[in-house]
Amino acid sequence: MAAFYGPSTEGGIELIERVPDVTAPTARYPFEVTLHQGAIEAIFLDNMREMGVKVDRPIIPTLIQLSEDQSLLNDPESFPVRVELKHLEPAEGDGDDTEIVNAKYVLGADGAHSWVRKALGIAMEGEQTNYIWGVVDMVPDTDFPDVRNKTAVHSNNGSCMIIPREDDLVRLYIQLGSESVNTTNGRVDKSNLGPEKLLEVAQKSFHPFTFKTPEKFDWWTIYVIGQRVASKFSVKDRVFIAGDACHTHSPKAGQGMNASMNDSYNLVWKLSHVLKGWAGQSLLSTYESERRLYATQLINFDKKFAKLFSGKPRSDIHIDGVSHEEFLMAFQTFGKFTSGTGVHYEESAIVDVRHQSLAPKLTIGERVPPETVVRAADARPYNIQDLLPSDTRFKILVFTGDSSDPSQLAKVEQLADGIEASSSFFTTAASKSMFDFLAISSTSKKNIVYNAIPALFRSHWSKVFIDDVDLTGTVGGHLYSSYGIGSTGAVVVVRPDGYVGTITSLESLPDLNAYFTRFCVQI
Amino acid sequence: MAAFYGPSTEGGIELIERVPDVTAPTARYPFEVTLHQGAIEAIFLDNMREMGVKVDRPIIPTLIQLSEDQSLLNDPESFPVRVELKHLEPAEGDGDDTEIVNAKYVLGADGAHSWVRKALGIAMEGEQTNYIWGVVDMVPDTDFPDVRNKTAVHSNNGSCMIIPREDDLVRLYIQLGSESVNTTNGRVDKSNLGPEKLLEVAQKSFHPFTFKTPEKFDWWTIYVIGQRVASKFSVKDRVFIAGDACHTHSPKAGQGMNASMNDSYNLVWKLSHVLKGWAGQSLLSTYESERRLYATQLINFDKKFAKLFSGKPRSDIHIDGVSHEEFLMAFQTFGKFTSGTGVHYEESAIVDVRHQSLAPKLTIGERVPPETVVRAADARPYNIQDLLPSDTRFKILVFTGDSSDPSQLAKVEQLADGIEASSSFFTTAASKSMFDFLAISSTSKKNIVYNAIPALFRSHWSKVFIDDVDLTGTVGGHLYSSYGIGSTGAVVVVRPDGYVGTITSLESLPDLNAYFTRFCVQI
Repeated sequence: MAAFYGPSTEGGIELIERVPDVTAPTARYPFEVTLHQGAIEAIFLDNMREMGVKVDRPIIPTLIQLSEDQSLLNDPESFPVRVELKHLEPAEGDGDDTEIVNAKYVLGADGAHSWVRKALGIAMEGEQTNYIWGVVDMVPDTDFPDVRNKTAVHSNNGSCMIIPREDDLVRLYIQLGSESVNTTNGRVDKSNLGPEKLLEVAQKSFHPFTFKTPEKFDWWTIYVIGQRVASKFSVKDRVFIAGDACHTHSPKAGQGMNASMNDSYNLVWKLSHVLKGWAGQSLLSTYESERRLYATQLINFDKKFAKLFSGKPRSDIHIDGVSHEEFLMAFQTFGKFTSGTGVHYEESAIVDVRHQSLAPKLTIGERVPPETVVRAADARPYNIQDLLPSDTRFKILVFTGDSSDPSQLAKVEQLADGIEASSSFFTTAASKSMFDFLAISSTSKKNIVYNAIPALFRSHWSKVFIDDVDLTGTVGGHLYSSYGIGSTGAVVVVRPDGYVGTITSLESLPDLNAYFTRFCVQI
Repeated sequence: MAAFYGPSTEGGIELIERVPDVTAPTARYPFEVTLHQGAIEAIFLDNMREMGVKVDRPIIPTLIQLSEDQSLLNDPESFPVRVELKHLEPAEGDGDDTEIVNAKYVLGADGAHSWVRKALGIAMEGEQTNYIWGVVDMVPDTDFPDVRNKTAVHSNNGSCMIIPREDDLVRLYIQLGSESVNTTNGRVDKSNLGPEKLLEVAQKSFHPFTFKTPEKFDWWTIYVIGQRVASKFSVKDRVFIAGDACHTHSPKAGQGMNASMNDSYNLVWKLSHVLKGWAGQSLLSTYESERRLYATQLINFDKKFAKLFSGKPRSDIHIDGVSHEEFLMAFQTFGKFTSGTGVHYEESAIVDVRHQSLAPKLTIGERVPPETVVRAADARPYNIQDLLPSDTRFKILVFTGDSSDPSQLAKVEQLADGIEASSSFFTTAASKSMFDFLAISSTSKKNIVYNAIPALFRSHWSKVFIDDVDLTGTVGGHLYSSYGIGSTGAVVVVRPDGYVGTITSLESLPDLNAYFTRFCVQI
């Protein structure tokens, strides 16, 4: 939950109200869970190790060179990037500490002070702010009743924010006056400050509630908010940057790591398709167009939000100050960013919106919203998002309409025949592994005959679903209506990252062919 | 889902209807999931190994002797049971293959032909039936559309049942004529039969649908249904039997392993309390009284159900045959057994029903039904069953009523003071580790001040809950009303196995003291 405290008429602060901390109606998990970056990285590293991938550390790049030879750049099999790496702790007997890597592609995910970005001469656009914040992580000893809620405190002594962390830990964000901190080039001089001093500032803001100074602090820092985005995210689609290397903004919505991971998430399936020979290199240009637009939107919003957060509360003295209503509205808009449901990719080679009207509420270019479907063979309910794993495959969802209606089933059979004919995108694709078909019928669970669906659309008995309530009568049955799909059905193409790529009718195989032949390698 | 097939007027069978396979309104998971016994045993064995417990195999008992000396039997520290064990594969150098164990308690969980039961001279009551069934497990190659549903087939060629198993496996139960099978002492002579022959019988029943004979069968057997219960489950509460050693019945509801595991589940927390010195030995007598009654109910129901299942379908020829309606009604009653929600323990030393009227819909002697509560400190929703883990502790749920009402809070504070006073069950208990307090307020999430609840009832900030809808507005807010608890609150004692032990008012500490002093060891 989110709690808001403001100035009390008796001095100090008082509770104004409590509201949901994430307001995003189409979010599947409309809440926040915090886990520190180190723990999340450990999950990735453990998983990579299980798959036989080891991360070498510590290593720094010392040189990056990209060939200017257009024929090399155009050849997907070439290695046009040369990187020199320096091993800072070479193993005994490894001899030279320098390694030369000739790469097809390079991704610089090396943080806000990215060496790769600087080496490529990519500029950061935007500027530093005057907002300076301190952060302390600790197990609090307090009588403050909202210490486990995400709490924003606007006091006449400054603003604070509480972010509950894992176990009993709590993070406090504490606004600092710019006069109290020395900064050089956007970096803060921390020599005169420590967590005890930061907590002293907070203690004034929280009055009359008390936060005792703990025996130890888990972590602390001080930072100046910078709001900047890189002028480009790639050079010739051979070298890319991602994450903090591309964008920096205030950390209060936890979007640093979230936006950054989604950069890579957007890029990797595209790289994977190109490296496997499934897609042409042109696919890669959609990385910058999709992610840079999102970063710009996030930063524009962040500017507004940071200003409200750091501003004085509105009062008789500060009549231009920030009102609670104003702040709350911004806070709630933020739900789209914290939940990720606000991400919208514009029209491109892989976002084809021409038949949006076939499913007006399933927005092409956005994530498939969560909805319950029921598996035809055994009536088990599933969230549709769980049927769309990030396994590099395009999911082709065949909304059959009522498959117990012979004329509707005939259309579905004709589509299956067309897709299996020699000229289709499927037959001519370099690999059939990049496609996964699912059928979703509007027939009820009492009447469905799952094995009447054409075999192409049910490679296994588990591939056929229906739009009906589940056996408990509590979930399901709203899929067609919530997406706006009519009784004549539709074909929905979902990209490997879960975003809707395009929608066509059951009869418009040519549009489906056109979509895939724009970027797929054909045999 | 469950599907029912009956004779078609065109010969063969046809779908009659599909219904939910578990009808148990208060079940948290109202569906069935099948996993074979070996896999479930492996989960237990792996977990035991992690905790440093090893199961020695193969070992058979050769002698069991229970002392007749009453003073020994009454002494919780004595070892009145002598068991001789023979190691069938002794390790090299272990010398003698016989081991003598002097035990405080012995549990014989050694199956339908239990050696322990026979050695103790415990009789099985009830009898064999004439119902003979074959079972085959296989990955089916079929055009039958309900092969992934729990399907009952009543055909004029005999009855069949489909139980979908893990992955693509399916179990077929196939009714056999008693003339086709030779039996001796309830054991079937399988020498003339094999899975191919069993499937041939099924193929006739499934006409016009086909089940091709697979290249391999995963498993198969033939059995005669016996419906018997042991005359007692214990000798002097020092030697116990559990599981198939106590009761045998038809396997079609998967109650063999479920009822058996619940026998042990009922016994182990009681044994644990006695062995730790928390409870007197008299607690152990409730094992037989609670579990033998349940076994008798299960077998009585099973007799009715097996008769319906094995009977001919009603038709013009068999006017006394089983009608679909009759079968369906029995099938749905079975939901109470398959889900476990039908278990009810009668009044005893640990089931005190005198104040049932304080929460008329929270039945004393039954499991706490699933309901959502919301954690006060952060509005996170929980299913109350997840707050009642099987950790050997009695959970004392303090339903405070509206804790923002000073007069109501005063009652809660008085209760806390009383429980902490020198005469209470809590202060005098041999161990405080056997109690876990939780507070559940009816105050809304907007108004709750979780740290206003007395400290005894919130050993951690996560121990206070409220009866309100969660932040999404979809779950919660029905706890007090669904249990029938009024605005004056109540204290609900939940046994370590999740069953309601007793209910008292906030003011009736003497009743709470009486409940625990009946079986707790006091200092």
